[in-house]
Amino acid sequence: MALIVQKYGGTSVGNTDRIKNVARRVAEYRNRGDKVVVVVSAMSGVTDGLIKLAKDIVPLPSEREMDMLLATGEQQTIALTAIALHAINVPAVSMTGAQAGIVTDGVHTKAKIHNISPKQVHDALDAGSVVIVAGFQGETKDGQITTLGRGGSDLTAIALAAALKADLCQIYTDVDGVYTADPRLVPGAQKLPEISYDEMLELASLGAKVMQSRSVEFAKKFGVVFEVRSSLNDNPGTIVKEETKSMEGVVVRGVSLDKNQAKVTLVGVPDKPGMAARIFKAIGDATVNVDMIVQNISHGSGSPATDLSFTVDKPDLLKAQKVIEGLKQEIGYKEVLTDEKIGKLSIVGIGMKSHAGVAGKLFETLANESVNIGMISTSEIKISVTIDLAKGEQAIKAVHKAFIG
Amino acid sequence: MALIVQKYGGTSVGNTDRIKNVARRVAEYRNRGDKVVVVVSAMSGVTDGLIKLAKDIVPLPSEREMDMLLATGEQQTIALTAIALHAINVPAVSMTGAQAGIVTDGVHTKAKIHNISPKQVHDALDAGSVVIVAGFQGETKDGQITTLGRGGSDLTAIALAAALKADLCQIYTDVDGVYTADPRLVPGAQKLPEISYDEMLELASLGAKVMQSRSVEFAKKFGVVFEVRSSLNDNPGTIVKEETKSMEGVVVRGVSLDKNQAKVTLVGVPDKPGMAARIFKAIGDATVNVDMIVQNISHGSGSPATDLSFTVDKPDLLKAQKVIEGLKQEIGYKEVLTDEKIGKLSIVGIGMKSHAGVAGKLFETLANESVNIGMISTSEIKISVTIDLAKGEQAIKAVHKAFIG
Repeated sequence: MALIVQKYGGTSVGNTDRIKNVARRVAEYRNRGDKVVVVVSAMSGVTDGLIKLAKDIVPLPSEREMDMLLATGEQQTIALTAIALHAINVPAVSMTGAQAGIVTDGVHTKAKIHNISPKQVHDALDAGSVVIVAGFQGETKDGQITTLGRGGSDLTAIALAAALKADLCQIYTDVDGVYTADPRLVPGAQKLPEISYDEMLELASLGAKVMQSRSVEFAKKFGVVFEVRSSLNDNPGTIVKEETKSMEGVVVRGVSLDKNQAKVTLVGVPDKPGMAARIFKAIGDATVNVDMIVQNISHGSGSPATDLSFTVDKPDLLKAQKVIEGLKQEIGYKEVLTDEKIGKLSIVGIGMKSHAGVAGKLFETLANESVNIGMISTSEIKISVTIDLAKGEQAIKAVHKAFIG
Repeated sequence: MALIVQKYGGTSVGNTDRIKNVARRVAEYRNRGDKVVVVVSAMSGVTDGLIKLAKDIVPLPSEREMDMLLATGEQQTIALTAIALHAINVPAVSMTGAQAGIVTDGVHTKAKIHNISPKQVHDALDAGSVVIVAGFQGETKDGQITTLGRGGSDLTAIALAAALKADLCQIYTDVDGVYTADPRLVPGAQKLPEISYDEMLELASLGAKVMQSRSVEFAKKFGVVFEVRSSLNDNPGTIVKEETKSMEGVVVRGVSLDKNQAKVTLVGVPDKPGMAARIFKAIGDATVNVDMIVQNISHGSGSPATDLSFTVDKPDLLKAQKVIEGLKQEIGYKEVLTDEKIGKLSIVGIGMKSHAGVAGKLFETLANESVNIGMISTSEIKISVTIDLAKGEQAIKAVHKAFIG
């Protein structure tokens, strides 16, 4: 008898027929004697619909109220999933994030899990019930409803698996597993039977779309081995775990394209110490995550000034822009430019550590496709470049062909 | 400076434009210095949509899970209303029923308010915020989400007004106040400037559609004077309060038609003691409210048997039927008949206590319209009859004309 945590995303619970399918899958595990905890997202479209309502009222609604609003999406799914399990005679009880004991900090719309006290979950499991937990949400110590941000339901599942010491954690999604590239972009992409946390981390943070990096980091930190697999079939998925010797032979494990970044450029930032610190402190205080940062060398006549570029998630662009505009007096830069039409292309692989010439081959491949490179950033196991969004798909196909086949 | 509780129903918050209107009205009161607590319902259509989803899965979903599901409707509205207030620079904070301290018993879908500990509400009001509370819902001592049943948001408002010792409680709806009959059915219906709790209670419980009886009972018990008025204009509404001398001069205050009842008839119930008690105990245990009960005299040859009829709210019909069918062995009745095609017509007035011949005039009026009378039930201040639903509107028009004009 195993304790299994399963997570189903918005597409897997997108309508009542799919919810019934989820219930049947859960029932299979439960009826062979496993204890099952199910984490669900909002039905696909629900969250977007709620965001639209709020933005109809005001472009930048209060984050506390957005949490109050959006937390309802998952709450609806847990109730419907419990009802679907009852309909096939499986005892089940739904729990909000708060009821499942998920305590977070108070950073609304991007809360971090502080601790989990899953007493009610254990009680219900011991009583023979399947437990359905609302993903993406928690509660502060003071009882304020919070949400965990994008990919929050994965995080809920992995954190619950850690807290419950689950034997298995399955992330059900609409793809079969982790591929060498997004199969929707690169038809020749291949499914990976396993991948290391670090590789997954780079792929996740770089827009492979399967999972957000926070969840993978959390899994790595707590040693939660998890499987990414499809809710639409019974194919085995991709196991994500600590790296093994055999993984190092592959130079590039995967290629990704992130279309969800936007670039902000501050033109003419006075070239004196403390400028960058001031800017990124203010952006951090507004809880906007910055990804790539590039600063060009000083140029121009008169007082020395530099151009500073960085990327943020597209939904945060407006907020980042507001912060930057608020600093205009203080910093004295010349102007702000933004660009939503960028794509970030990355190659990832543990094997890069021990193989030279990878960057050169990447740049050459892009040059052959007449793809211009904007920003560049590298780590031990990845290389990322920003390119024109319109050329993104052409570029990822070529890069995949060059490195993987 | 007054403390005002305002309640807005589903139509008043039916879309984002209407929510903005509500915000403007709330802001008027708040900006003249009043403390305002706003209770809102789910946006019209939302609750029905959720019920449909659940019933797509199974006809009789678990009541605990229905509460989990339906409580999200009001939670969405409170967030959107707070956002709309922020947009016009009014500080506002939303609270779920639980956060507002509304503690209920554990009877899911029909919970009763046990007590209210509005500490968070007081704190937020003292900090200068408008407080937006989710109507229709609460939480048990154990943290289970409950809902209060039909008309629950009115109850939330009146109970909060009592707990907060509010100076004024306003129930905003889509009608101008309480009329001598539903103006949608009887064009000549007149608005009443004031009405007693008891009259309102009879009208409410009899389908006047303005408010559910529980809320009026609660207001009567705690002496909460409230005003029923329109959210679409600034007309004064109807004040509901203790009866006054001047009210007694009017024989019939109002005429109502309840289309939401269904009739259950048990044919051939053995005529021995304890049968009725057994039946209505079982129905009560299933938390189905019974309204009218009529038992005909014994008939037939062989062992004596009676026919027993009662009415329930239409949505409870299936549940009532299941209970009755479960008792077939034990009771030994012949068969169960149900009829959803009934209307209950009632006339209400404190003045009836001191005026004779009211029943005779009612029956004569119906006879003149060839409307057949089914069940009859009377109290000191009302007379109700069931009639064919199809003749309901014709009948109420005639009865209004006969008694009120």
